[in-house]
Amino acid sequence: MNLTGQQLIGYRESAKSDQTFPAFDPCNGAGLETFFYEATEKEIGEAVELAESVFSDFRDLSAEARADFLEAICEEAMALGDKLLERAAAETGHPLARCEMERNRIIQQAHLFSELIREGSWADARIDLGDTDRQPMPKPDVRSMMQPIGPIAVFGASNFPIAISVLGADTISAFAAGCPVIVKAHPAHPGTCELAARAILGAAKRCNMPEGIFSMIHGRNTEVGRCLVEHPGIMAAAFTGSLAGGRALMDVAAARPVPIPFYAEMGSVNPIFVLPGALAQKKEQIAAGFVTSLTMGVGQFCTNPGLVAGMESDDWEKFSELVAEKVSEFAPSTMLHAGIHEAYTKGIEIRKKSADLELIGKSSARPNPDACEAAAYIFETNRQGITSDPTLLDELFGPVSTLVNCGGLEDMVAIAEKMDGSLSASVHGTEEDLIEFHPLLSVLQRKAGRLIFNGYPVGIEVCHSIHHGGPYPAASHSFFTSIGTRCIERFVRPVCYQDWPDSQLPTELQNANPLNVWRIVNGTRSNNALKA
Amino acid sequence: MNLTGQQLIGYRESAKSDQTFPAFDPCNGAGLETFFYEATEKEIGEAVELAESVFSDFRDLSAEARADFLEAICEEAMALGDKLLERAAAETGHPLARCEMERNRIIQQAHLFSELIREGSWADARIDLGDTDRQPMPKPDVRSMMQPIGPIAVFGASNFPIAISVLGADTISAFAAGCPVIVKAHPAHPGTCELAARAILGAAKRCNMPEGIFSMIHGRNTEVGRCLVEHPGIMAAAFTGSLAGGRALMDVAAARPVPIPFYAEMGSVNPIFVLPGALAQKKEQIAAGFVTSLTMGVGQFCTNPGLVAGMESDDWEKFSELVAEKVSEFAPSTMLHAGIHEAYTKGIEIRKKSADLELIGKSSARPNPDACEAAAYIFETNRQGITSDPTLLDELFGPVSTLVNCGGLEDMVAIAEKMDGSLSASVHGTEEDLIEFHPLLSVLQRKAGRLIFNGYPVGIEVCHSIHHGGPYPAASHSFFTSIGTRCIERFVRPVCYQDWPDSQLPTELQNANPLNVWRIVNGTRSNNALKA
Repeated sequence: MNLTGQQLIGYRESAKSDQTFPAFDPCNGAGLETFFYEATEKEIGEAVELAESVFSDFRDLSAEARADFLEAICEEAMALGDKLLERAAAETGHPLARCEMERNRIIQQAHLFSELIREGSWADARIDLGDTDRQPMPKPDVRSMMQPIGPIAVFGASNFPIAISVLGADTISAFAAGCPVIVKAHPAHPGTCELAARAILGAAKRCNMPEGIFSMIHGRNTEVGRCLVEHPGIMAAAFTGSLAGGRALMDVAAARPVPIPFYAEMGSVNPIFVLPGALAQKKEQIAAGFVTSLTMGVGQFCTNPGLVAGMESDDWEKFSELVAEKVSEFAPSTMLHAGIHEAYTKGIEIRKKSADLELIGKSSARPNPDACEAAAYIFETNRQGITSDPTLLDELFGPVSTLVNCGGLEDMVAIAEKMDGSLSASVHGTEEDLIEFHPLLSVLQRKAGRLIFNGYPVGIEVCHSIHHGGPYPAASHSFFTSIGTRCIERFVRPVCYQDWPDSQLPTELQNANPLNVWRIVNGTRSNNALKA
Repeated sequence: MNLTGQQLIGYRESAKSDQTFPAFDPCNGAGLETFFYEATEKEIGEAVELAESVFSDFRDLSAEARADFLEAICEEAMALGDKLLERAAAETGHPLARCEMERNRIIQQAHLFSELIREGSWADARIDLGDTDRQPMPKPDVRSMMQPIGPIAVFGASNFPIAISVLGADTISAFAAGCPVIVKAHPAHPGTCELAARAILGAAKRCNMPEGIFSMIHGRNTEVGRCLVEHPGIMAAAFTGSLAGGRALMDVAAARPVPIPFYAEMGSVNPIFVLPGALAQKKEQIAAGFVTSLTMGVGQFCTNPGLVAGMESDDWEKFSELVAEKVSEFAPSTMLHAGIHEAYTKGIEIRKKSADLELIGKSSARPNPDACEAAAYIFETNRQGITSDPTLLDELFGPVSTLVNCGGLEDMVAIAEKMDGSLSASVHGTEEDLIEFHPLLSVLQRKAGRLIFNGYPVGIEVCHSIHHGGPYPAASHSFFTSIGTRCIERFVRPVCYQDWPDSQLPTELQNANPLNVWRIVNGTRSNNALKA
């Protein structure tokens, strides 16, 4: 399969623009196969209007048919073989093994969603039975369940070219819900995007899906994304990326004549609090675990731990030394692309010059800037330093973290209070530590989407109970997650049916409950059938 | 109890401004007891900061304690006796019986929420058990459930001075979730608001709630609402009112440095489609039911039916005549306040002058403008008329509706497609009609929050399955409802606990499941305990 770099509008290719952009290998700056065409406003409109025109048909398919489609996508993605992994590796600097791990994740995720919709209870079917004899007014029969909202715009992340991009949870959960998807391909890995898109289109054809439930457009120009979000046919958007990029598009979505939800996951600081009992017992283990979490994937995870707070003590001093030592061993490695590398390098320079920070450790080897290599850095500060310069708490994407020396519980609480919303917060402690530091835990519950005990933030279990989101700016809306089965909620809304004839109700709401789903009937959970 | 017109900041009263405004009886323009002080920015800040300071304490109370508080609110509201009903009637022109109906509804609603939180399964507890032996990586233990988000701003509606105001579902569901509330009192019924607020404060004292979980501020100036929504301590806002007012505050919420969800229910057109089979069988009954729904409460319901579409035929002509006849019998009645009366009168004048509308019926008696009286009006048009002037599909608050003559199914579908999002859409039909008009139903599923069969939109059953919301502008976010138990979802977010010690987990997530709540354990619904 050769790449064409064109817009994929349903099963059709389109290249109306005379502007193209190349793909690069960040390890050497070399151009990769083909050039990619910027999508024009007309092409974007065609993709959205095609999606709109087939939305009702796609919605009305059985969950079984949509589940088959998700599984076909997995098969087509696997059928791409090493070609997908190799292109992803070439476009991002990721090792092949990492790309394979990402592919495993999309396969697991697609199967999780196909199971979810085959089972059917996710749709939150509710029934309140009527009572024509009620006084003073008869009680109507009221039923409701989640239904898909329409065409969704998806913006993938640069750091997961396979697992959080064209084939990520956004696309898969939107399909699971019954929504058509238009992906804006990521300009840092457009070839990987094209391959993944072709896998989806192959699966759609094979499963006889209506043409237009999936399209993909390219653009390095930010106007392409804006134009997609502004199109009146788009009913919601999902985005993973930087705060600056996410907020700009959030504002576009909010300013539309008909505003739409813009579900953005924009990264965070992911603090780790190391409490004294744990520090005394296993400082070596925590230092090693932290540095592994920090440097994995060259620090390019949205859950990368950007801050570690501990109580000033001999133990903490020793911990800092251990961290500095581990960090010195990190071999500088290639970042995702030149833009990220440049932002990281600049950010490190600013921190080096800050009077509030002290550099206490770094990779002993020198990074090669021509290969976009990043070294790891560890800084140190205290509550005073963070208070005088709150930008020290901003995320800096890459393998850098700051140790914060605390004088007491109040310092830890104050630092937690000062933090913006975060995807995660980790606490290392003994059970006794947790009791003593209860006020800290109380604050963290308000600040983070996921609380981790004696663990590290990087690595997210894809499951029913995971939450990958949190208070702004970790996510644009703290109710919704971008990973795990709950993420389907972004693309549905309740539709209520009052006194609706049984035969015309969605299957999940019919008296006979043929799918055997769990429902809330008159306030009580049940998967039984109802008498007609 | 005498009214003071002051801000109620926790248990303290405050009147820092030198600006006040009066309350009026719309029936005669007479001023009512006391003047109300505009809240100052400082007072607003004090209320929010007090709420923030007690949020964690309120959150950490048992569901049992919060349920008792909700029931105490009911008792205190009942203890106000006729005073509450009389003041509400005086400030809105509502008959006393209507005010009593509203009070019944808040009592029923508070009990529904107290039952909901005592039972506990609403919190969507989920558990995925860990597996330390899993390869290549151990599987963590992951659990999550809904937790409250923090202080909530509530803006009540003018048309339900008791049931959708200080004591409405917004306040009650926020308390049920564990969130402090700051109400912006409605300037058209500020005295009713003060009475209701004092009931809440009395209940809070009696139940030893932390001071500051409830405050109420006054303001006729729109700056008061803006200032409240802009305060960084406010985590979400709930609003019921006009599109113009709602959208202005939505934009404020979206433009904050830290944007917050602004849950607005902004009314809608609530179309009724009368299909030929039903029309032939029961045109008299439908005409009578429709006009009752249209004129009830002087047409001042957000679910008021503003459009009725039917197929041109002898039956439809007869139906139109019946409607015009019924409408002529409607005795002009007092609207909520002078502003609404003026907007209605202007809107009617514009429709009378429209070349696309024909006035086919109106109240035979003349309204008295000095008593803010509204007459009922029925206009007629067709698909062409609506296409040439889409503002004909905008909501006009009051007892006015438009009959739309359709030439065929395509006209009905085209009208439905043209509609903005609506709280409800009603269909009168036989089961055969539903099969023939399937394409219409398919469109309505995309446009409305609630689909009603052979019924009328006014009157909302407060229950678990109701949805009072819909695509914009019916609501600001179509996932969320402002009535029914699901409305608690606006004030919570999932918090995820990874490898968290059982003893430190919220009760709902502990292995022993002491509250016996329904949970999703490894993807399966269960209310069992887990082995430690």
